[in-house]
Amino acid sequence: MKTVQDYIRTIPDFPHAGILFRDVTTLFGDPRGFRMAVDQMLHPFTGQRIDKVAGLEARGFILGGAVAHQLGVGFVPIRKKGKLPWKTIEQDYALEYGTATVEVHEDAIAPGERVLLIDDLIATGGTAEAGIKLIQRLQGEVVACSFVIDLPDLGGRKLLENMGMTVHALCTFDGH
Amino acid sequence: MKTVQDYIRTIPDFPHAGILFRDVTTLFGDPRGFRMAVDQMLHPFTGQRIDKVAGLEARGFILGGAVAHQLGVGFVPIRKKGKLPWKTIEQDYALEYGTATVEVHEDAIAPGERVLLIDDLIATGGTAEAGIKLIQRLQGEVVACSFVIDLPDLGGRKLLENMGMTVHALCTFDGH
Repeated sequence: MKTVQDYIRTIPDFPHAGILFRDVTTLFGDPRGFRMAVDQMLHPFTGQRIDKVAGLEARGFILGGAVAHQLGVGFVPIRKKGKLPWKTIEQDYALEYGTATVEVHEDAIAPGERVLLIDDLIATGGTAEAGIKLIQRLQGEVVACSFVIDLPDLGGRKLLENMGMTVHALCTFDGH
Repeated sequence: MKTVQDYIRTIPDFPHAGILFRDVTTLFGDPRGFRMAVDQMLHPFTGQRIDKVAGLEARGFILGGAVAHQLGVGFVPIRKKGKLPWKTIEQDYALEYGTATVEVHEDAIAPGERVLLIDDLIATGGTAEAGIKLIQRLQGEVVACSFVIDLPDLGGRKLLENMGMTVHALCTFDGH
């Protein structure tokens, strides 16, 4: 029986030469794969109170929408700067060259709400770290961060765990 | 009892002066609102065969992920050019000034698959039209296009209906 990992396609040299890109569209496009991914992203948190699901743009929106729907809770988008129409708070994070910024609506999370953070992949953890900080600045509590793929060589899981986070991933790949 | 429309926030002068922006994040962030939106987007198609849900980047990913999950089918992202890692086909569409391009993986839809196209809003219909053409070029059949919001003054619904499409929207707003 295929696992979540079996549904992920590996594409060499995207977006740059030497990178093995892990393509989750083949997972999302399969009814059994998509359902398994959503179920398994939630299994460790069964019975825990989760008030909202936050997803990181853009693949985290696909998974996060499905996870929020499965839980019967609301969904909060964490977006690249300039996309959200209402009052936002913003958080910078480091890229390989330079920085980028993500934002959340300042009324998206109420103080004390328990939030599950969702994305497809954790690599260096920069975007996830910024997302966690945004949730915490709104006085939300991050229940956990749940990913399909962990690239442990890039150190993101360790970074988030050092912030006191619970990190869950469905599969790991070596290298970049 | 609040309707889907009641959960949508109107923001004046975003992204430009004179525009009333319809903000669906307040709908998505509410557990009852989000559930109602997903249910109502699917109601007209109950009992019809739907093989896949296609969503338009980026807000269509949130809704489309949830709709695909509710149906128990796979999800296909239609993305802005350059974001998809595998072989794609692309389709241009007109903007107010210039053109833009959307893409889909060339193996995302198999010939004969019946696809429901999802986005949060139909305005001029340019992106939806491009999405329909991509699905049809892969020999998929578009069952219908389902939106939360229709801005009928901008003519998108009429454009899609003139292509022979079934168009469903949960609410309408006058003007832009």
